[in-house]
Parts: sequence; C-alpha cells; structure tokens
Amino acid sequence: MATTTPMSSRLAAEALGTFVLVLGGVGSAIIAGKAIGAHGVALAFGLTVLTMAFAVGPISGGHFNPAVTVGLAAAKRFEWSNVLLYVAAQVVGGVLGVLAIWAIASGNADFDRKSSFASASNGWGDVLSGYSLLSVLTTEVIFTALFVFIILAVTSGRTPDGFAPIAIGLALTLIHLVTIPVDNTSVNPARSLGPALLAGGDSIEQLWAFIVAPIVGGIVGGIVYTLLTGGARSGVEIEGKR
Amino acid sequence: MATTTPMSSRLAAEALGTFVLVLGGVGSAIIAGKAIGAHGVALAFGLTVLTMAFAVGPISGGHFNPAVTVGLAAAKRFEWSNVLLYVAAQVVGGVLGVLAIWAIASGNADFDRKSSFASASNGWGDVLSGYSLLSVLTTEVIFTALFVFIILAVTSGRTPDGFAPIAIGLALTLIHLVTIPVDNTSVNPARSLGPALLAGGDSIEQLWAFIVAPIVGGIVGGIVYTLLTGGARSGVEIEGKR
Amino acid sequence: MATTTPMSSRLAAEALGTFVLVLGGVGSAIIAGKAIGAHGVALAFGLTVLTMAFAVGPISGGHFNPAVTVGLAAAKRFEWSNVLLYVAAQVVGGVLGVLAIWAIASGNADFDRKSSFASASNGWGDVLSGYSLLSVLTTEVIFTALFVFIILAVTSGRTPDGFAPIAIGLALTLIHLVTIPVDNTSVNPARSLGPALLAGGDSIEQLWAFIVAPIVGGIVGGIVYTLLTGGARSGVEIEGKR
Amino acid sequence: MATTTPMSSRLAAEALGTFVLVLGGVGSAIIAGKAIGAHGVALAFGLTVLTMAFAVGPISGGHFNPAVTVGLAAAKRFEWSNVLLYVAAQVVGGVLGVLAIWAIASGNADFDRKSSFASASNGWGDVLSGYSLLSVLTTEVIFTALFVFIILAVTSGRTPDGFAPIAIGLALTLIHLVTIPVDNTSVNPARSLGPALLAGGDSIEQLWAFIVAPIVGGIVGGIVYTLLTGGARSGVEIEGKR
Repeated sequence: MATTTPMSSRLAAEALGTFVLVLGGVGSAIIAGKAIGAHGVALAFGLTVLTMAFAVGPISGGHFNPAVTVGLAAAKRFEWSNVLLYVAAQVVGGVLGVLAIWAIASGNADFDRKSSFASASNGWGDVLSGYSLLSVLTTEVIFTALFVFIILAVTSGRTPDGFAPIAIGLALTLIHLVTIPVDNTSVNPARSLGPALLAGGDSIEQLWAFIVAPIVGGIVGGIVYTLLTGGARSGVEIEGKR
Repeated sequence: MATTTPMSSRLAAEALGTFVLVLGGVGSAIIAGKAIGAHGVALAFGLTVLTMAFAVGPISGGHFNPAVTVGLAAAKRFEWSNVLLYVAAQVVGGVLGVLAIWAIASGNADFDRKSSFASASNGWGDVLSGYSLLSVLTTEVIFTALFVFIILAVTSGRTPDGFAPIAIGLALTLIHLVTIPVDNTSVNPARSLGPALLAGGDSIEQLWAFIVAPIVGGIVGGIVYTLLTGGARSGVEIEGKR
Repeated sequence: MATTTPMSSRLAAEALGTFVLVLGGVGSAIIAGKAIGAHGVALAFGLTVLTMAFAVGPISGGHFNPAVTVGLAAAKRFEWSNVLLYVAAQVVGGVLGVLAIWAIASGNADFDRKSSFASASNGWGDVLSGYSLLSVLTTEVIFTALFVFIILAVTSGRTPDGFAPIAIGLALTLIHLVTIPVDNTSVNPARSLGPALLAGGDSIEQLWAFIVAPIVGGIVGGIVYTLLTGGARSGVEIEGKR
Repeated sequence: MATTTPMSSRLAAEALGTFVLVLGGVGSAIIAGKAIGAHGVALAFGLTVLTMAFAVGPISGGHFNPAVTVGLAAAKRFEWSNVLLYVAAQVVGGVLGVLAIWAIASGNADFDRKSSFASASNGWGDVLSGYSLLSVLTTEVIFTALFVFIILAVTSGRTPDGFAPIAIGLALTLIHLVTIPVDNTSVNPARSLGPALLAGGDSIEQLWAFIVAPIVGGIVGGIVYTLLTGGARSGVEIEGKR
C-alpha cells in the first residue's frame, strides 16, 4: 500500500508528525514543565509518537526523526534516495512546532523567549545540566541506537499489526525518563533544532552534538539490528508495516 | 452494524460517554486535583475517552464532544443531519456530569461551589491562567484540529481494529499535558459548559471562546485530514470503525 | 472453553486475582503511598486488574470483585447460582492479600497495624476524609455502576479480543484518580473488607457502606447496560470473552 | 519459528534485553530518581520489559531475568539444559547495563559511584530501607512468583497475540509501585548484581538475598501455575508465543 502513497502525502505526514512531536514534547516542557515534571514531559514525548504513528504511520512510516530515517536506511529498510526529502520535511515540521509553542507561550506575561527555549534545548555543562560533553554524546548514541533498534524490530513483521506504535511511543517515554536530567534528551535532531534557534546563544553553539550523536546512534542501531537478525527480512520500505 | 443501531441508543451512548468524560476529567480536577496534579488530571481525561470509546464506541462512534462531531461531519464521515442531535446528547451528558460532581463534592465542608467550579472552568487572563485570549484561541484551534485529525486517521480503516480508542484517549491525555496551564484545556465545548454554569460570573463570560474555538478547530482538523488523504475512504458514518 | 473449566480452577483464579488486587492496590497505598501519591496508587489498582484479567481472565472471567459478579448476574451474563461461590473466593483472596501486606509491612519499625490499615480503609467523615456519608454512597454507587457497565460493554463481543483487560484495568485507574480523596475508593467489597478487619474500630463500623453501595452500584450498572443495549447478546457466561 | 532461531541470536537478545532493563530501570533511578520519583522509576522498569519483549521477545522469549528463566523451566516451558546459557547472557547484559550507567553518570561532578549505586542496589535494614530481612525475602518470593505466574499465563496461548508484552511490562511496573520502599525491588538477580558490584560494601553483602529469593519465587510461580492450570499446554519452549 505504502509504495503507492504519493511522496507529497508522505512528506506532509512526516512534517505533521514532527510538528506534533515538538509541539507536544517540547511544548509540554515549556508550558507545563513545572506542573507535570520530568515524568509528565517524558509521557508527553512518548504519546506524540504513539498517537501520530497510529495516525500517519500508515502513510509515511512515521519516522518524525532524521536519526530514525537514517537508521532505517542503514538497515536497508528505507531508500537512501528519499532520506533528504524526509529529513527536510521533519525539519520543517519541527520548526513549525516551536513557532506554535512560541505563539502560545508568548501570551503569558512571564514568558521570556530566550530563557524558556534555552531551558527546553538540549545541552551540557554549565549551559544546562552539569553533565560532561562525553556523557551527553554517550547518552545520545546509546539511546538513539536503542530507539532505532526497537523501531526496526517491532516493524519487522514479527510483531502483530497495531502494536508497533505502542512499543515505539513508550520506548521514547522510557528514554526520556532516564535521560532528561543529562541533556534534556534529544535522540532526534529535528526535536533539537527549533528550541536552539529560538534560544540562541549557547544553545545554538551546542546544537551540533544533537545532530551528530543521534545520527551516529541511529546508524549504530541499524547495524546492530542487522547483525543480530541476519539482515532485513522484506525489502526496502518500512511503510505499511506500522 | 452501526447504521442499524437505533438513534435513541446512539444518543444515550453519547450522553453517557460525555457524562463520564466530565465526571472523570473535571471531577478529578475538582475532587483530586491537589493530590494528583496536572499529570493525573491529564491521565484521567484521556482514560475517560479510552474506556468509553471501548465501551460505547461501537454504538455511537464515541464522539463525546461537539467539536469532534462537527469535525467528522466536515470530513464527510458523519451526517450533518445528525449533528444537532449528537450535540444535544453531549450537552445533556456533560451537564449531568457536573451535577454528579457537585453532588459528591458538596459533601465536603471545605467545598465552595463557585470557586471550585471556577478553578476547573476554562478561561484566560486574570480570571484563570494569565495567558492572553489570543494564546487561548490559538491553543484551542490547534489542539482540537489535531485531536480531530487523529480521530479521523485512526478510524479510517488503516488502523487495526481495537487500537483507535487507545490512540484517541492518549491523544487527549497528551493535549492536557501540554495545555492545562494555558486555559485548563477544553478542545470540547461539552466539557466547558457545565463547570462554567456552576461557577457563574467570569467563567460564564469567557465560555464563548471554548465553544467557538474548538468548533473551528474541529472543522480545521476535518479539512486538513481531507486534504492530506484525498478525502474520506468509506462513505459517511464513522460508527463501527472504532 | 470456559464452561469446561473446572469450578475449582475458576475459584482459585478469582481468589488469586483478588489477592493480587488487594496486595497491589492496598499494598501500594500502605507501603508506598508517601512515595508514589494518589496517582501512583490509582495506577497500581488499575494494573492489578489489567494484568490479572490477562492472566486468569480466560479461566474465571476475571471479576475479582463481588460487585462485578453481582452486576454481571443482574445483566444475565453470569449465573446467579455461582455468585456465592465466586464471592467467597474473592473474599478469601482479599483477606489473604491484606495478610501478605501485613507480613511485609510489619518488618518496618515505623509500621503500626491499626493506623496503617485505617489509612488505607474506606471511610468517611472524621474517620477518614471529611466527606459526608451521602457523598460516599453516591460516589460508590455511581462509579461501581460505571465500572460494571464498562466491563459488560467491552466483554460483549463487540470489542476485539484482547482489549477488554486494558479497558477494564484503566477504568479502575480512572475511578481511583477521581475518588481516592472521597473515601479511598472501594467499588469492591472484597477490597474493603481486609483493611477494615486489620484496622478495627471505626473502619469496621463504616465497612457496611462499602459492601452495600458497591453491590447496589453493580446492579444499577447491569440494569443500565441491559436497558441501553436491549439485553445480553450471547447467553449466560462471561468467561472466555476476555 | 523460535526453535529455528540460532542460540547465538537468542543469547544476544537476552543480553541486550537485560542490558536495557538495567540501563533503563536502574539508570532512571540513579540519573533521574529525584526528578521522576518512585512512580517514574516503576514506569521505567516496566517499559524496559514492555518494549524489549516486543522487540526481541520473538527471538529469545524475552526473559531478561534468571528468575523468569528458572521459573519457566520449573513449569516445563523452557529447557533446563539452556538455563545456564540464558542466565549467563542475562548476567553479562545486566553488568554491561551498569557500566553504561556509570559511563553516563560519572560525567556529572556530583556523582559518587559508591553512594549512587548503593542507593539503587537492593537491600534491607540500616543499609537501605529499614525493612527486616524477613520482609524482604517474603516480598521477593511473593512478587517474583506473581511475575512468573503472569508471564506463564499470558504466554500460554490463551491471550491474543501481541498483548503479552503489555501485560508483562505493566506487571513489572505494578511490582515496583508496591515494593520499591521495601528493598528497591529486585525480582530479578540480573538487575541486582550490577549495582551491588559497583556499590561494594554492604550492598555486596546483602546481594545473596536478591539471588536466592527471586529464584525461589520464580520456582514457586512456576509450580503454582502448573497446579492451577493442570500443566503446560504446548510443549517446552516459550519462544514465539510472545
């Protein structure tokens, strides 16, 4: 089915899904972080992927994340020729997501754009969390690899239809439950870009790590999965498996 | 199956589902808000829809929300001729929900009807949250559109049977995790009416926004879904798909 | 299948499920209440039913609750002649549950049997919550009726196999999210008995309400469901439907 | 299918799953415990098993726990001859998990290896929780037996495909919601070993209890399940049933 879906619909689905991921995940941190805590923010991030993978996964595969797209390509489950298009759509969606947060949050007199988005940006050291750059890189590589591994496994055809979005969404919640204190959790360059752009300053300077490390982690996840299972089972495209 | 369900049963199902949505969602805020926080209230709202969509979704489609009914009609997945009947049933159910909360909560000596229901009413500015009217309207339109989009997508026949109530209920939890601090989250005029009626005063004056914006959002969601997917796939009625 | 399951296995399953419900639900309140709060206790209660309905629901139907057994009988989905046996098994399981809690909790020097179990007993007024008896009775009737209604609906054959334990367990979480502050939430006489026995005093004196009101609520739920849907669809037994 | 999976893949899957269980569960406690509380840690532990049972359960059966492997063998659902291999893989995975936590957490200047891992080790008395050894042994035996019982039941073929990982993962969350205050919850020797090794001292001295009691509990769970259901239904291997 999925191969007959027009690329324009698939890109719109990726942009929309990434928009929701950022609006719901980063938005919950900025708008409601004090009320719901790290536990609530972790749940919100996971539910963005759970719900949108159900909603538009059948259209685009439901990546919403450049590291996932690259990782799936590394495992030969997504065509390298479409990677740039998908990533572009995800970046557009993610930036629209922070603009929507900005539009909403700026209606509160206490809102300060730079400090609010800095507090929800990924980072390390004195800028954010007190953790070292090495810790942060290690965290992002390991957890992105794990995330991509889980996605590859539960969309391989062995998992009964319908459960993949639950497993994938709750995997993202798990990742946030562990790693928010380290670096606010990226595992997704499209989640990291927008807040850094609106925060500026140190957040922009540290942005590179949350592009490079998740991409490396995604490739590692794709390779580990391929090694463990003896390679992809059913051709190139993930679409239609979720 | 659903087209043979008598309209009286369908309306009773909508009234009952909306009764539970308000009793469980608004009720958790009024009765247990201090104990469970915004995270717990967000979970309660989502679980009302998750459980009642499983229970009576096969009877009525499980809207429980005028904005959903209108949004489904805008996407040609529900008959315009039945919209008013559904909305009337939802309004009745929602009002019965706040009466049940009142009956329970008034047995506590510390309970004050006006201030308690005002604290669970939707609103903005000095009345409730400090957010501007523009922020609140933006929030309600965006998140109701997202909610209706997800409902349309997961009941389109592409999602395996049985998962739609999970996706829809947890989408409502996600929406509350982000937006409770903005305006106590409506995305549902039938959720907003009852508390405002029992709170009176400023809550009543601000009620219009939580009727208009969710309806507009529902229509936007229906149109966006139609544009993205090339229209409804299988006729008029949603019933039986959940 | 279920009708061929020996009654001894079915009763063992009911006793075990109710044991887990009390051990997990009441146990989380007594042992971990300060750490996890009402939100965590609500989740624990729901997960006891979710997990045990998956585990032994195919054996006994997974009632774990006299009000559910009576409510199902009122809706002609369970044989009246087996009600007393089921209730006896549930009572035994529930009492064993509080004994297990006692065995564990008494290993902490700060534990006081009477005050700890009183704090997890159901009650009203000065004894527990400050709510009136009328509020408590209203709460128990409404929420038990809702619980039984949901159980009847999601085990009627309209819900795809496998989802009923999720809907039922999360319905119990929802009920606790709303009503813990009112009376510590019963909706289940077998949950209420054990803590009251170990607390003694006022908790015992108030126990009657949490036997009578949930039973009444269960019958109301069974009747409302029958009225809404035009009666049971498929004979007497619920077993095998979950 | 599973019987044709090479043992090397199965052992890699067990090692990876246990790695994630420890990294996610113990890691959430050490890195994020103050932010997410016992409720969040309980959720994290459960989600490690939920997600990895979906991901690699079809490969290895998804035990991730020596007590589960032994319990399944006691119920004749896993070959005794493979128990040591599985346990070895789980131990390796668990130790790698704490090394990954160490690598991440040591990048924070406030991190102290011994005290941090001691705070996440299992224990009793003055060393950890104030609970007695007898309470702790009782807790571990009862809850491990319950865990293994649920695993056996939901993978017996009576539960529809796909739901077992949800039931098993959320059972582990339930167990943690109740028992974290008693002894930090083991029910899994492979979870207990690593933190004790890195904490040293009293944690090492108390480690034996969290090897012996979960193993005993697992065997009890296997026997109780066999007695209740009249024995295993379908031969030896659990693989492929999740």
